Amino acid sequence: MKYFLRFTGIYLLVGMTIGSSFAQYSIEQWGRFELSLQHHAKVNAFTDVLLKATFVHKDTSYTVTGFYDGNDTFRVRFMPTKTGVWHFTTQSNAAELNQKKGSFTCTEASLHNYGMVKVANQYNFSYANGKPYFPLGTTAYSWTNMAEGVQEQTLASLQQTGFNKLRMGVFPKNYDLVKEEPRIYPYELKEVRKDANGKEQKVWDYTKFNPLFFQQLEKRIDQLQAIGIEADLILFHPYDKGRWGFDAMPMEANLRYIAYLTARLSAFRNVWWSLANEYDYVVSKTESDWHTLTKAVVQNDPYRHLCSIHGSTAHYFDYWIPEITHVSVQDEAPVMNWGAATIARNIYHKPVIYDEVGYEGNLKQRWGRYSGEEMNHLIWMGIIGGTYVTHGEAYLFKDQRDTIFWAKGGTFKGTSWKRIGFLRKILEELQHPIEPADVSRDYQTATNGKGVYLVYLGKEVTNKWLFNLPHKNANFDRPKKGNRYKVEIIDTWNMSVASVPTTFELADVNDYRLYDKDLNYVRLPLKPYLALRITEKHE
Amino acid sequence: MKYFLRFTGIYLLVGMTIGSSFAQYSIEQWGRFELSLQHHAKVNAFTDVLLKATFVHKDTSYTVTGFYDGNDTFRVRFMPTKTGVWHFTTQSNAAELNQKKGSFTCTEASLHNYGMVKVANQYNFSYANGKPYFPLGTTAYSWTNMAEGVQEQTLASLQQTGFNKLRMGVFPKNYDLVKEEPRIYPYELKEVRKDANGKEQKVWDYTKFNPLFFQQLEKRIDQLQAIGIEADLILFHPYDKGRWGFDAMPMEANLRYIAYLTARLSAFRNVWWSLANEYDYVVSKTESDWHTLTKAVVQNDPYRHLCSIHGSTAHYFDYWIPEITHVSVQDEAPVMNWGAATIARNIYHKPVIYDEVGYEGNLKQRWGRYSGEEMNHLIWMGIIGGTYVTHGEAYLFKDQRDTIFWAKGGTFKGTSWKRIGFLRKILEELQHPIEPADVSRDYQTATNGKGVYLVYLGKEVTNKWLFNLPHKNANFDRPKKGNRYKVEIIDTWNMSVASVPTTFELADVNDYRLYDKDLNYVRLPLKPYLALRITEKHE
Repeated sequence: MKYFLRFTGIYLLVGMTIGSSFAQYSIEQWGRFELSLQHHAKVNAFTDVLLKATFVHKDTSYTVTGFYDGNDTFRVRFMPTKTGVWHFTTQSNAAELNQKKGSFTCTEASLHNYGMVKVANQYNFSYANGKPYFPLGTTAYSWTNMAEGVQEQTLASLQQTGFNKLRMGVFPKNYDLVKEEPRIYPYELKEVRKDANGKEQKVWDYTKFNPLFFQQLEKRIDQLQAIGIEADLILFHPYDKGRWGFDAMPMEANLRYIAYLTARLSAFRNVWWSLANEYDYVVSKTESDWHTLTKAVVQNDPYRHLCSIHGSTAHYFDYWIPEITHVSVQDEAPVMNWGAATIARNIYHKPVIYDEVGYEGNLKQRWGRYSGEEMNHLIWMGIIGGTYVTHGEAYLFKDQRDTIFWAKGGTFKGTSWKRIGFLRKILEELQHPIEPADVSRDYQTATNGKGVYLVYLGKEVTNKWLFNLPHKNANFDRPKKGNRYKVEIIDTWNMSVASVPTTFELADVNDYRLYDKDLNYVRLPLKPYLALRITEKHE
Repeated sequence: MKYFLRFTGIYLLVGMTIGSSFAQYSIEQWGRFELSLQHHAKVNAFTDVLLKATFVHKDTSYTVTGFYDGNDTFRVRFMPTKTGVWHFTTQSNAAELNQKKGSFTCTEASLHNYGMVKVANQYNFSYANGKPYFPLGTTAYSWTNMAEGVQEQTLASLQQTGFNKLRMGVFPKNYDLVKEEPRIYPYELKEVRKDANGKEQKVWDYTKFNPLFFQQLEKRIDQLQAIGIEADLILFHPYDKGRWGFDAMPMEANLRYIAYLTARLSAFRNVWWSLANEYDYVVSKTESDWHTLTKAVVQNDPYRHLCSIHGSTAHYFDYWIPEITHVSVQDEAPVMNWGAATIARNIYHKPVIYDEVGYEGNLKQRWGRYSGEEMNHLIWMGIIGGTYVTHGEAYLFKDQRDTIFWAKGGTFKGTSWKRIGFLRKILEELQHPIEPADVSRDYQTATNGKGVYLVYLGKEVTNKWLFNLPHKNANFDRPKKGNRYKVEIIDTWNMSVASVPTTFELADVNDYRLYDKDLNYVRLPLKPYLALRITEKHE
């Protein structure tokens, strides 16, 4: 018998009999092990052939689902979460696929492999290896359904940025300014009908997936991984409007799609599940359907990737249910107003990402015409409140065929994207996530709990800032008289950091605040969008 | 046998044998029927005598719990929710209390009896008879534990105001500026011990309530009802600190207390259950304990009175659980910043009351030193966001024995309380509750969906306002070209309403807004805290 092993990004054809000889192969932690088995099914290979495999490492075991990948090829993918030897056994209703056994060695992760991103510290994220992850994403809803050249361009564009997350859909998008017909489809075409008006309507066989479509998607997700970007994968969306019908499949087709997608993609360490974009605009599904679909994703995902769902403006799902790992919500109000971003954080006790607060762009729609300054400002407003905000860009310079990054990818034409890279550097230097130091009272001061504060001044333009800190310091030790601090002025727009020569020393608490003992102030340039980084000095 | 019937506020001694002769007595809808039975228990009458009664009206039935009220008297209280004849039967493990039967006629409610307040229209409230209820409350945590004279003064003060809700505790309060020893206690005193430092420590018998304490509380609740005030009754609080120990009773005593209190008070139509004030500061109870206690209240309350729980600043309980009817939260940020109040409303899909955003007062603590203007402003900020905000007052002019309304009641010394009465009039004139017309985009304009808008200008001081409305109108019909409106300028601080002579007529939609066809504006006085009432004209 012939079978194949595929490691992350590397395809290996291995000809041997199934057996212990697998042990000679190694794969790194959070990498992807792939077992490839040949079987010619007489039935529908997508729906009627069941294939699972159990992977065991001492007292840890995972049972993962395999899938049919076309050409008589079945695959089982697995992401080892621990180093050492893993043994596996397959189970199938097809004799040729059943009871295949083997093992492999999982080695230490390589330099830029930090593992899967997960919730850390209740309100934030880290990679599986403990490295903090600050989500700074952008949006390209349908980039993998664009022409090949645009897709390549998108990757090249992303690589120049500091983005580490991309909101992207599986299904193609039919919307104002996005009318491209995809090159390939997720399902096998059954027939093309004409409706009453003579308009062609594709009819799909929802029991037969098109493996090429998914292979293409996977290639792109792997390419994102290679440049350090998490794929915040949107499983459903309402932007179809009768064109292909993927927003209105029967519930059993939705569930089959989830089972297939999760079988293919759960072993990709950089995948997040976003059940939908603007879920409440999907007219064919009820709130209860979304609960069912969310549960299906979680049940089918042995690793428990990050999972959320996104609604229309100010439409909050029941994010408190245990299947939802973090809030991914469309809402402007929380980042347009001081102190408001933190409210959802306080309510859900989960990380909050404002995943659509509008786009930098030049569209006539109000959601697509922020200046670069405004986009950058809104992201900082979220950050200073202990939450995260996703970037997006919607510039249209030519005709409707122009690539707007928001939906198509292509190239960045705006000005805020560069500032996000700068912000990411600032956040990573903090090492620990920040949160409001004096919640509901001081809307500008965030603390990392380790002696570093960020103060964001927003649109305020003033020539000086009286040095002072709140006495409250979230749940961390409070600042004390005699503490000494250095201050740096961060120009979030011009991307500069300037040290202030003065060392500030705290006097006693005075009405909930601690001021410098000599009431020293920080002289500021007369510019908006400044932040201060205040770091305790121990020397 | 002798037994007693007590109607709301009226005590009747009825000497007759149990039987159908009850039918001659009548009680109004949402009034209080009380059956009084004599029995000399040889056991602990509070814990070992079980008494229930089932009240039946055609296909409606309620089983309510009776309670021991001292002096060999057991009572069963019932609030009839429908007019017509109700029949009842008691069940008890004491033969003398068992199988007592009777009936009474429930008549139409009298003029100022609108029934129990309940959630209406998802985000708001109404009385049982359908009359909208806009909660505009104040706070007097421990007023019923003050000297009699202060209690009488409190009632007299409240009667002069427009308040229709009062946050008030059952247990006495031990806190800075509130050190009064109550005249009576909720439990029977077992002994007075001296601790290691020689300090006296009262030891209570948590199996024996003091009926006098509860009778006194009930008298005050009935007096509030008589002046149209809902009692937002706080069952637990942390302000005890070892003085009486009511914040740290064993869990079985907490549950017995809830059973006793709900048996006594559920038939009071103006009672709301607030499980706690600043629940997370009660060190003896876990989050899970609070869930248990909340469930206990709801299970013991046959009418499902409004029920919530209140935490410390920005501390949000799991308000999404079905037992919680509305959000009652302490948080300043949502009402200090535009657009922020609405976020919790969007998240919970329940009515939201910001029940402690600080107090008008002159204390040195930051929570107790708002100006009257600020207190009034914060309440309007909540209102314009489709939520509600509770007033409170904390003025201390003499020494610590001075009555601060916040905890003790007494007299109002501030300036905002009058404005709340004015606001109540404005809201009641709207007839329908308001909500943001263009959520997350326009933070100043609220709609009642029936052609009336309120626009709150807050601290802005400007001489004119260009007439315009958002095209969005929540989920109501959108305003259209040709619609005509009158405008009134509401000075929320000076409590005046001035009509603007111009009739404004809408032009077509222009970038999400509709302006007057001649771009007419409203001339404004140069004052802060203005609102506009914009009413569609149909003549």
